[in-house]
Amino acid sequence: MTPPALLPSWRPGRTRDAVVAFLAATEALPVEARVAAFDNDGTLWCEKPTYVQFDFFEDALRRRAGRDPTLRERPELAAVLNLDMAAIGEMGLERVAIALAELFAGIEPEAFRAAARDFMRRARHRTLGMPTLGTRYQPMLELVDELRRRDFTVYLASGGGTEFLRALSEELYGVPPEAVVGTQVRYELTRRADGRPVLLRTAGVIGGANEGAAKVTNIQSQLGRRPILAAGNSAGDREMLEWALAGDGPGLALLLDHDDREREFAYQSVSGTLNEHEPITSVATRLGWTVISMANDWSTVFPS
Amino acid sequence: MTPPALLPSWRPGRTRDAVVAFLAATEALPVEARVAAFDNDGTLWCEKPTYVQFDFFEDALRRRAGRDPTLRERPELAAVLNLDMAAIGEMGLERVAIALAELFAGIEPEAFRAAARDFMRRARHRTLGMPTLGTRYQPMLELVDELRRRDFTVYLASGGGTEFLRALSEELYGVPPEAVVGTQVRYELTRRADGRPVLLRTAGVIGGANEGAAKVTNIQSQLGRRPILAAGNSAGDREMLEWALAGDGPGLALLLDHDDREREFAYQSVSGTLNEHEPITSVATRLGWTVISMANDWSTVFPS
Repeated sequence: MTPPALLPSWRPGRTRDAVVAFLAATEALPVEARVAAFDNDGTLWCEKPTYVQFDFFEDALRRRAGRDPTLRERPELAAVLNLDMAAIGEMGLERVAIALAELFAGIEPEAFRAAARDFMRRARHRTLGMPTLGTRYQPMLELVDELRRRDFTVYLASGGGTEFLRALSEELYGVPPEAVVGTQVRYELTRRADGRPVLLRTAGVIGGANEGAAKVTNIQSQLGRRPILAAGNSAGDREMLEWALAGDGPGLALLLDHDDREREFAYQSVSGTLNEHEPITSVATRLGWTVISMANDWSTVFPS
Repeated sequence: MTPPALLPSWRPGRTRDAVVAFLAATEALPVEARVAAFDNDGTLWCEKPTYVQFDFFEDALRRRAGRDPTLRERPELAAVLNLDMAAIGEMGLERVAIALAELFAGIEPEAFRAAARDFMRRARHRTLGMPTLGTRYQPMLELVDELRRRDFTVYLASGGGTEFLRALSEELYGVPPEAVVGTQVRYELTRRADGRPVLLRTAGVIGGANEGAAKVTNIQSQLGRRPILAAGNSAGDREMLEWALAGDGPGLALLLDHDDREREFAYQSVSGTLNEHEPITSVATRLGWTVISMANDWSTVFPS
């Protein structure tokens, strides 16, 4: 039996050539320099029409509100229950996220992990007619596998909650919890009546959202190595992608362009760092990143 | 050839029996639950008469002070250069540590890592007449190897600086950077004149020293799993050891008692959490930890 071709779901062309050239260029590097960092939402799986973590919180809230209708009185939660995206947009996702995080304040990390995993077993995408697990991008799974075959360490750097992604990262991508960095909930160590210590989630966050420059400082602080491959899809990934290209050796900055209304979604992220309202694909071209056109560069989007 | 016996440098007896029983009890656990966390200084290698990280900073300061004698005017740095431990004790190690950390502010993490590794190639213990690398504890190296053979993930949870230990953790213990948690320096992402991003150390610290309850919250926040084996030697490890025993399944809390003046050092750490000035070995007995007597339980202390 012949082994499967390299990256079979990537169509021949400049994008695939750039990935393959990078893989070849890194063969001579010491193993500890082989580090890749992937954004998750919109880079490794579908983030439209809503983030999966939002779906998880909505599901938990809906169950809770069935038992406790007073939860509907809080405007942030009412907006979620009504899927009123305009209202959520007006309040700001951060304010809504804080209200949702309070649903899980006071529980142990193991209970949160179990809840996230239970949700993923049931979750279905809102419009694509498939399990949420099926919305991972097949070409990215192939790239992650190929990197691992080449002794790369694969980090996940998500703007979402660290603990939600950690609960799933091994199953989704074969990535262990300690290789995941995201937005961090604050924990509190308390003691039971019998003196035994118990670790509880709070509703607080440490150091703000893991987006933009924070992705770089958090990757260094919490994971410890500079990626030489970084993959993202939005303005929040910009600094991480720039950092991956700023080292001395080979580097690859991959930006996924969601230009595939037929098979997934078509939308653009906008970066405000240097030029107001510059589309991230334009930033990519200016800075020499490799742009993946979902429509043109991938023969398959989702696993069959 | 017969395989080497299990934990050959651990003498037969109650301590070794407890370790072996724990290993047997964990064989049925899912791999993701097999997590062990080790303190570093005084648990995996010698911390007396000074922490190795202190030796590193002292070495860097001495070289710097050769070029810039004004550094001697700062009392914290003068005390280090004079190895005036009484003065350092009076000022407090934290204040001195901040002054020392400023020596490396403004450099990239790769340069700090290179400096730490360069130091370790040269470093010799102050009194034991051997390279600092030789002061790792052979029985602990055997335990770490045995755990890894059994698909445990091994975390390092140090009160020292995360980045110093990360620079060495693979060489010292086969632990990758992302599995190390310690006291975190703050980073800043800036840009060069040409716009390229550059990540620089600051003299600031994120969230205080990684000691006591912080070891527990930081292990969860940054690494993501509860250890079922925790090993330490001081009051700063207390909460971590309690936490390892507070889960539902098998757990092991190992406390190394430095009672071996002949081969290493004899000293006691004191815990102030519940009872003022209670020796940590007394806490250990009260809470059902397994105390390792260096003098009695280890046939060998250092690798030959």
